[in-house]
Amino acid sequence: MAKHKKQPRPKAVTPKGFRDYFGAEVTRRADMLARIARIYHRYGFDALETSGVETVEALGKFLPDVDRPNEGVFAWEEDGDWLALRYDMTAPLARVAAQYRNDLPSPYRRYAMGPVWRNEKPGPGRFRQFYQCDADTVGSASMAADAEICAMLSDVFEELGLGGDYIIRVNNRKVLNGVMEVAGIGGPEHEAERGIVLRAIDKLDRLGEDGVRALLGEGRKDDSGDFTKGAGLDDEQAGVVMGFMGALGADGAATLANLDRLVADSEVGREGVDELRQIADLLAAQGYGPDRIVIDPSVVRGLGYYTGPVYEAELTFEVTDEKGRPRQFGSVAGGGRYDDLVKRFTGQEVPATGVSIGVDRLLAALTMKGRFDDAEDGPVVVTVMDKSRLAAYQAMVSDLRKADIRAELYLGNPKNFGNQLKYCDKRGAPFAIIQGEDEAARGVVQIKDLKLGARLASELSHEEWRDQPAQFECRLEDMVSEIKARLG
Amino acid sequence: MAKHKKQPRPKAVTPKGFRDYFGAEVTRRADMLARIARIYHRYGFDALETSGVETVEALGKFLPDVDRPNEGVFAWEEDGDWLALRYDMTAPLARVAAQYRNDLPSPYRRYAMGPVWRNEKPGPGRFRQFYQCDADTVGSASMAADAEICAMLSDVFEELGLGGDYIIRVNNRKVLNGVMEVAGIGGPEHEAERGIVLRAIDKLDRLGEDGVRALLGEGRKDDSGDFTKGAGLDDEQAGVVMGFMGALGADGAATLANLDRLVADSEVGREGVDELRQIADLLAAQGYGPDRIVIDPSVVRGLGYYTGPVYEAELTFEVTDEKGRPRQFGSVAGGGRYDDLVKRFTGQEVPATGVSIGVDRLLAALTMKGRFDDAEDGPVVVTVMDKSRLAAYQAMVSDLRKADIRAELYLGNPKNFGNQLKYCDKRGAPFAIIQGEDEAARGVVQIKDLKLGARLASELSHEEWRDQPAQFECRLEDMVSEIKARLG
Repeated sequence: MAKHKKQPRPKAVTPKGFRDYFGAEVTRRADMLARIARIYHRYGFDALETSGVETVEALGKFLPDVDRPNEGVFAWEEDGDWLALRYDMTAPLARVAAQYRNDLPSPYRRYAMGPVWRNEKPGPGRFRQFYQCDADTVGSASMAADAEICAMLSDVFEELGLGGDYIIRVNNRKVLNGVMEVAGIGGPEHEAERGIVLRAIDKLDRLGEDGVRALLGEGRKDDSGDFTKGAGLDDEQAGVVMGFMGALGADGAATLANLDRLVADSEVGREGVDELRQIADLLAAQGYGPDRIVIDPSVVRGLGYYTGPVYEAELTFEVTDEKGRPRQFGSVAGGGRYDDLVKRFTGQEVPATGVSIGVDRLLAALTMKGRFDDAEDGPVVVTVMDKSRLAAYQAMVSDLRKADIRAELYLGNPKNFGNQLKYCDKRGAPFAIIQGEDEAARGVVQIKDLKLGARLASELSHEEWRDQPAQFECRLEDMVSEIKARLG
Repeated sequence: MAKHKKQPRPKAVTPKGFRDYFGAEVTRRADMLARIARIYHRYGFDALETSGVETVEALGKFLPDVDRPNEGVFAWEEDGDWLALRYDMTAPLARVAAQYRNDLPSPYRRYAMGPVWRNEKPGPGRFRQFYQCDADTVGSASMAADAEICAMLSDVFEELGLGGDYIIRVNNRKVLNGVMEVAGIGGPEHEAERGIVLRAIDKLDRLGEDGVRALLGEGRKDDSGDFTKGAGLDDEQAGVVMGFMGALGADGAATLANLDRLVADSEVGREGVDELRQIADLLAAQGYGPDRIVIDPSVVRGLGYYTGPVYEAELTFEVTDEKGRPRQFGSVAGGGRYDDLVKRFTGQEVPATGVSIGVDRLLAALTMKGRFDDAEDGPVVVTVMDKSRLAAYQAMVSDLRKADIRAELYLGNPKNFGNQLKYCDKRGAPFAIIQGEDEAARGVVQIKDLKLGARLASELSHEEWRDQPAQFECRLEDMVSEIKARLG
């Protein structure tokens, strides 16, 4: 070794934009995903796990004539082929649906859960690897497929203990297309205007009604003074588009009647309203009322991307934003219908609809709502007073584990007993077991109740605390049952 | 769109060496890993999930002075930094143990489960992405840490229903080091010979005793005529080394006594035997007999890599190899002690020990042993006889799902009823529900028992089959209970 030139030591850091997950961060997510998977499975959806790596060609979305794929994905050349990490679950589904089209059932219901990678500038809470949890139905044009996704999403929230705290809103791109026709920008010569309208309404949340109305008209100057050219609609035209987003009525029937009136003169518009009506009827037949799933034309997110029904799930409970103001928790899932999934590969149009759950946001919501068992998860720690009796201590640990109690033998250097107690503290151990020579001779152990000890120490004066030490002695053969009883 | 130049369609293929996993392939693995995680957790191991991407610098194992990292990993340059997909779970653990060394408990028990990537030539059953499932203890020099890993591994096999079908063998690198000293190749001037000896005994499985003995001596000519130079040991020296691998006695005490005699003249050798004795004592104290965990010097795999105890888990039930001969299923997990984990980063030696389970092999073993519930997993399919009654069919599906029965509405084009039954077949549906106008008017449904139907069709003549159609009628309100009873 001494012959080698001295190398600088490598830095022990996660790459920029990536992070590590420890303990409960991992297991809570796994638990949540397992519960979601059970619902998906009950609905007939089959698991699909593709690998993290795809060919750039299959992923698509790259400029064909540049040497280096553009930003957004992690890609590299391998023996002349470009490979890349998947950036979502939909692109691999498209590849699978095309590759196995003769073997898969049709329609094909599938779910997928796992990490995806984005080569984007990381920001606070924005990482370059994160989880997605998708469910899609490929090969069905039926509105029952869309209604089913919404019902399933509702069941997921109920299963996760969020009943009463969520709402799923449904809208339809075809109704918007009808609205554009009625507003006089339906023809192929108005593609540019329609593009501006789509981008404008997608900003409703951010810009508010006035901002969107400005973009529908002449244009809008933002706070920095930059001017964004508008779609050039006159007030009447813009009013039709704004009427669409404001068409929510007192109940589903009223909303649908509003939309009926709005797009009466457009075939595609009427088709869209009819699709919404079918979805509403299918959901009503299953008992999903408007308190859980509602037809709501103000859902505009994704309208530019999807081709038919669009749905978005919001959590409605209140949180405090970074400025201390109360606001609703907001969106945790979204999806809709898209018909070009497999076409890139096969030339055939295959209808598909699906939803993606934002795993990290949903997990954050469950944590805020206290939906995780916060009972002590730390192990019972058997300390080492007498190194020569290691086998006896190990047997105690083994007995605890056999009773399904999380337990550890202290495996560090036992010389300094204070370090052993510090370790217990770091581990969140509810109990420490102590047995010295004297206790061993008498066939007993000392059980230190560390949670009680910490509470007493903070609540009582030193004198009182001394009189109520959170430590007691019990016979070795009673140790497991004593601990079990106290863990509850 | 018509303006764009026509691009050739992308190929819908998985990249070479990668594969897709469908349905039960995904859920069985997930179930198995969840059960393993429960055992790991009970032992006090905490989950750790690092991202798939690491800096090449942190991963190490690359030549420092070449532009392109060498083969073995998938790596790419990103804004001047080299990133790579992790090739195992140990390198990220080393990085984490160094990065968070002031925050993690010490000793730190952690488990990690997930995919790893190898840029290797793919072969039959060898893929470039596969799962690993590791448990390691960092920061403990105690043999109790090694014994614990073995006990935990034993518990995992018992939990998975493999009791009686496995054996965990334990050996120790230090004993081999002692054997080399006794054989006269202990000094620094014999490093080359020791290297040859290590490589030779690592090939015991493949070359047999004679092959290894040849490599310990002058060398060995293989079937292709290629000559591999040996370590140049004389018969007596080689006999010492061979004696090590053959030191298994009638019981643990006899084995340890054999080893004691073999390395009596070597301090490190005696230390190694003492470590094995400690492990044996700790396991005996917990009730793990030699039918589950055994001291066995014939375990040579990994001796070159590890620095102390080495362990390997084998499944002992018989399978048939590709040539039709019976053989034991073989190794599914291995590990040992390594003390240089964090040293690359911090300069400090940190003792560590751990095990890695071969997830795919263990899954294959469980499948062979019929350890998975092969009960029908296909959904009950509610067919669509009358498109106008979709909401009623959907309500039936909803009722089945509410009773936790996996169920689907047929979402394809309902025109051809034969296609609906073909779909049921492809889905492995146990039952199909049929309700036409007549049944709807009478408030009944037809239930087609597809499994019974298939069995009858294969067992009975056409005439008998006609008289016993596996289809029956029941009242709509009894549908759920009828299905539930028949699903068992």
